[in-house]
Amino acid sequence: MLGLDWGTTSFRAYCIDAQGAVLALRTAPAGILKVPSGAFEAALEREVGDWLEAEPGLPIIASGMITSRQGWLEVPYCPCPAGSAELAAGLLRHETARGRAIHFVPGLSIVGADDVPDVMRGEETQIVGAVGDAAGRRLLVLPGTHSKWVRAEDGRITWFATFMTGEVFAVLKEHSILGRLMKGDRPVDAAFTRGLAHAREGAGGLLRKLFSARTLGLFDRVPAEGIASYLSGLLIGTEIAEALGCLELPDGVEITVIGEGALCERYLTAIAAAGLSGRPAAEHASARGQFLIAQAAGLIG
Amino acid sequence: MLGLDWGTTSFRAYCIDAQGAVLALRTAPAGILKVPSGAFEAALEREVGDWLEAEPGLPIIASGMITSRQGWLEVPYCPCPAGSAELAAGLLRHETARGRAIHFVPGLSIVGADDVPDVMRGEETQIVGAVGDAAGRRLLVLPGTHSKWVRAEDGRITWFATFMTGEVFAVLKEHSILGRLMKGDRPVDAAFTRGLAHAREGAGGLLRKLFSARTLGLFDRVPAEGIASYLSGLLIGTEIAEALGCLELPDGVEITVIGEGALCERYLTAIAAAGLSGRPAAEHASARGQFLIAQAAGLIG
Repeated sequence: MLGLDWGTTSFRAYCIDAQGAVLALRTAPAGILKVPSGAFEAALEREVGDWLEAEPGLPIIASGMITSRQGWLEVPYCPCPAGSAELAAGLLRHETARGRAIHFVPGLSIVGADDVPDVMRGEETQIVGAVGDAAGRRLLVLPGTHSKWVRAEDGRITWFATFMTGEVFAVLKEHSILGRLMKGDRPVDAAFTRGLAHAREGAGGLLRKLFSARTLGLFDRVPAEGIASYLSGLLIGTEIAEALGCLELPDGVEITVIGEGALCERYLTAIAAAGLSGRPAAEHASARGQFLIAQAAGLIG
Repeated sequence: MLGLDWGTTSFRAYCIDAQGAVLALRTAPAGILKVPSGAFEAALEREVGDWLEAEPGLPIIASGMITSRQGWLEVPYCPCPAGSAELAAGLLRHETARGRAIHFVPGLSIVGADDVPDVMRGEETQIVGAVGDAAGRRLLVLPGTHSKWVRAEDGRITWFATFMTGEVFAVLKEHSILGRLMKGDRPVDAAFTRGLAHAREGAGGLLRKLFSARTLGLFDRVPAEGIASYLSGLLIGTEIAEALGCLELPDGVEITVIGEGALCERYLTAIAAAGLSGRPAAEHASARGQFLIAQAAGLIG
């Protein structure tokens, strides 16, 4: 089968064998915001047309922001709790002009105890892939522009919450007074660790703590080269504290981090600094999730 | 005397009589960032040269970001606690090319229990003006790009903290995904109140709560016209909760709000929604503070 993990800024295509193993991966900076005027079929043919020609009957599963209003086809959210069975039931089938059938995976929605909705698109597939059919309770985090913290029970997603950590970092770095003191954004470990500590131990909440990135810079207590890392540590540390405040964690729980190299490493460092244990998910969680959803839908044997 | 409240984006000049009453006020969009290549004397002569010609011996006091590294003359911070006497002792006298003496007011610095410094420039003069020589403890807030919460005792500033509320609002509105759903920024009271309530009662901390501005918009639970007001309420409500968490408030304390019309009103609404009582400061707090500092320095009779 072919699995498409098609997000806002990137396109990833997995060629997956009958046992769920990834045979090949192609990536391109062809996220949905970069596809001109909705020409998604042309983009698909450009990136993986040769694979599709070679295996015309290949089942295709697509997940990510490609299933949103700004994507190829808007798929209604599937309510939580949900696992591969519910996601399979919510697949939307679409036939391209060339006659290829694509199955779009729904995103997930949940309404909190405070009556405020939350949503995800794309992460549900990664989570299903990372969790598999494992029995018991699992806690996961997917760092990013909008980080997701997730509780899964017996292979189904039962709770999640979004934290705007990555986007807050980006807009403060690019557009606020905090960015003006920064020199470069090469990681500086000591500054990152100091930011984590201030998130845990500093006075006030985030709106006050953010100003420390300015004053510590002004007073040369954090070097200009480290202010971006300090701010990153402050925000990631705050996210972890907020997330733990939303959850009742059993002792010794392990947090699975789903994400790419450097950012995943930062979260593992931050989780350890908070006194918790974390581990990276196996790679290709999206492909694994797409395979499990395709299986549940009966698209593959 | 002449009082100059010269900030990052605006210039205000007060003509003050021997009893401290404001005889005249001139304002101009001639903040320090808008004065080309440090031509501050030319800007001063352009805005109030006629006053200075008419009364050549007029004592001149200047406060605000004009006393910073980016301003006319950098005045070292005065440490907290400080009132009019300490600020008077820290005045820096500068004679212009035309032979006019200007006395620049120092900003204030403080180091928190968490060993992180905090600073203000310009607000110290407003606070001294608003508090005067009143005995007892006072709590004040100066809303803005970088809001200040302040405790004053017997006319001296004994504690303060900065919250980046206004700047976080601005960068999220202009540059984040939250701004994309917003339609206009006319105040919508119901949305502002809802933001205040979510700050108090919603699940998680600020990084999580921010995402509610997106989902409530996506699900049409807050109209597009109200999302900016919702975000404003969420941030101001969060600031108030953070500030109260830093302070031990005696019962029935009244919070004095120093600021301009609409923003001051929003803070008074938010303070009332938090179950506290607030009142606006008398107008021209800067001029009053400049007068008290000039008196303490013996510059006026």
